[in-house]
Amino acid sequence: MSESSGASSVIALDAMGGEHMPQAAIDGALQAVDEGIEVVLVGDADRLEAELSRRGVSLRVHHAGDVIGMDDHAGDVRRRRDASVMVGMRLVKEAQAGACISLGHSGATMAAALLHLGRIPGVDRPAILASLPVQDGGFAALLDVGANAECRPNYLQQFAIMGSVYAASFLGRPNPTVGLLSIGEEPHKGTELVREAHALLAATPSIRFHGNIEGKDITRGTTDVIVTDGFTGNVVLKLAEGEARTIFSWIRDALSSGLRNRLGGLLIRPALREVAKLLDPAEYGAQPLLGVDGYAFIGHGSADARAVASALRTAGKAMRNKVVEKIRSGVASLAAAPPVSS
Amino acid sequence: MSESSGASSVIALDAMGGEHMPQAAIDGALQAVDEGIEVVLVGDADRLEAELSRRGVSLRVHHAGDVIGMDDHAGDVRRRRDASVMVGMRLVKEAQAGACISLGHSGATMAAALLHLGRIPGVDRPAILASLPVQDGGFAALLDVGANAECRPNYLQQFAIMGSVYAASFLGRPNPTVGLLSIGEEPHKGTELVREAHALLAATPSIRFHGNIEGKDITRGTTDVIVTDGFTGNVVLKLAEGEARTIFSWIRDALSSGLRNRLGGLLIRPALREVAKLLDPAEYGAQPLLGVDGYAFIGHGSADARAVASALRTAGKAMRNKVVEKIRSGVASLAAAPPVSS
Repeated sequence: MSESSGASSVIALDAMGGEHMPQAAIDGALQAVDEGIEVVLVGDADRLEAELSRRGVSLRVHHAGDVIGMDDHAGDVRRRRDASVMVGMRLVKEAQAGACISLGHSGATMAAALLHLGRIPGVDRPAILASLPVQDGGFAALLDVGANAECRPNYLQQFAIMGSVYAASFLGRPNPTVGLLSIGEEPHKGTELVREAHALLAATPSIRFHGNIEGKDITRGTTDVIVTDGFTGNVVLKLAEGEARTIFSWIRDALSSGLRNRLGGLLIRPALREVAKLLDPAEYGAQPLLGVDGYAFIGHGSADARAVASALRTAGKAMRNKVVEKIRSGVASLAAAPPVSS
Repeated sequence: MSESSGASSVIALDAMGGEHMPQAAIDGALQAVDEGIEVVLVGDADRLEAELSRRGVSLRVHHAGDVIGMDDHAGDVRRRRDASVMVGMRLVKEAQAGACISLGHSGATMAAALLHLGRIPGVDRPAILASLPVQDGGFAALLDVGANAECRPNYLQQFAIMGSVYAASFLGRPNPTVGLLSIGEEPHKGTELVREAHALLAATPSIRFHGNIEGKDITRGTTDVIVTDGFTGNVVLKLAEGEARTIFSWIRDALSSGLRNRLGGLLIRPALREVAKLLDPAEYGAQPLLGVDGYAFIGHGSADARAVASALRTAGKAMRNKVVEKIRSGVASLAAAPPVSS
């Protein structure tokens, strides 16, 4: 694995996959490089070099002759070895880079990460973790948000361990609590999956299990980590982002009607902008693929330069905080304990 | 059934179940009665009469000697025939009332409704429908929000028909579109349940099936009806309510720091209050149990007088719009068509 064979602090950035590529990748990378982050752009070298020289700037480029489109099938990744996301993950495997970020096709990114980096021993299914803004101004770790639509109880147990490591080492939530998303606090509430996962989580000594939580607890920040299947988690993440947009559009409308509201709106615009920033996915830029044996990140397909720069910062911080190494030990400690059930 | 044996326009209100009872029931009922709605309070007659005479007001009371507490088991309902929610539903069955509302134990309310009113022929599982505020200022019909944690594809088909009737006849959404909540627009995305339900909905001529929608579409109002299993729907509803509270608490905090923000906040307070009202569950007060063969409604256990009055208005409007009768015909038309799969 990359980490053992000489850690590279270079981040391989898929500069082709995504709606605003390669422009957003170049602009975002330029911001990050200014902050001391090492980046290599992965993509069509001719096109990237032409774009860079047109702007009179310079960045490291690694050629990749193909790109997975947003409408392609994730299953095609295996035979498209020259696709930018495949080349980026290969750079991590070969220790030429320490992390890979793609803002393109999520399924293809996960597939490429698994093909080249594999899973951490003891992890059945990697999960996508989202950092969700909560009441106190910090973030809760929500996983899985879409890698596994259908889950088994032991996947959720592994998500709990990986999410706890991430919350402690990345989100600044020491000794994090874990909540199991359900439709009532009582252990008997919810689906069969949730009831079985509840028993398993309650019997996992390496996590701080709070018990079941409900939808209303998510943004309240009742727990630092929220575990759920990838179907529910994906709906939660996209609703949370969509509702914020809806509420701010209502507020904008309200503040544009009448002199009093327009004047008040003018005064509070900077403050409202700060609140809106709390909810802007571009602020964290990319989500880690936890359980993959290496640093791999997925961002929004619509990422702009700011989101790309945030994604690069996120990857850099995760590497500095040795998130993958810590997950490896966390999951190993689980394997050492006798399983209660599966 | 109640409707055929002489429709009563009286609403039986469980005045005991819930956190702020019986005060909230009395205050809410007094508001509704002022608006011409006929209400009978169901509960401990001595206590209710004492409370009414203390205030020097008068309301119809029907005695019920027992009440299901919020921590009781829904399964206990069957043998607690004198519980207020059981007596209320019995009044509907006996055509002494046209509808019953409880703001107490949800599971017990559903159980009591099923025991006394039964299911509409062709409905496998009744669902709880929530009216969710959407971008354009109206509401989308979301179901199921908690009656059935685990669902089969044909339940979702029935939810689609019942939700369409409700959206058209109650929410003012003529010829409503139906979205199936998933984690991608493509029919192959999601869980096995979603994929099978997609095929079934696409083959249901009596609904206007839009296809799969995602979490971000919920508050955007992409479709008028959103069908999902009761686990996902419950998480969605509670997250939507919780996130609105979180965002408004952030805004309140932001507007209390600094002279400029405090002044701006003062100016826009009325406008913001109007926006917050859009998201306040107390605005609609109660959610219908669709598929039950009669008018039955569940409200928040924390309902205050305003929520009770809204619930009474909601029940009255549903009866006037003959929602149950229309669902009966809608489901019958489904039974008449040959099933594609189950």
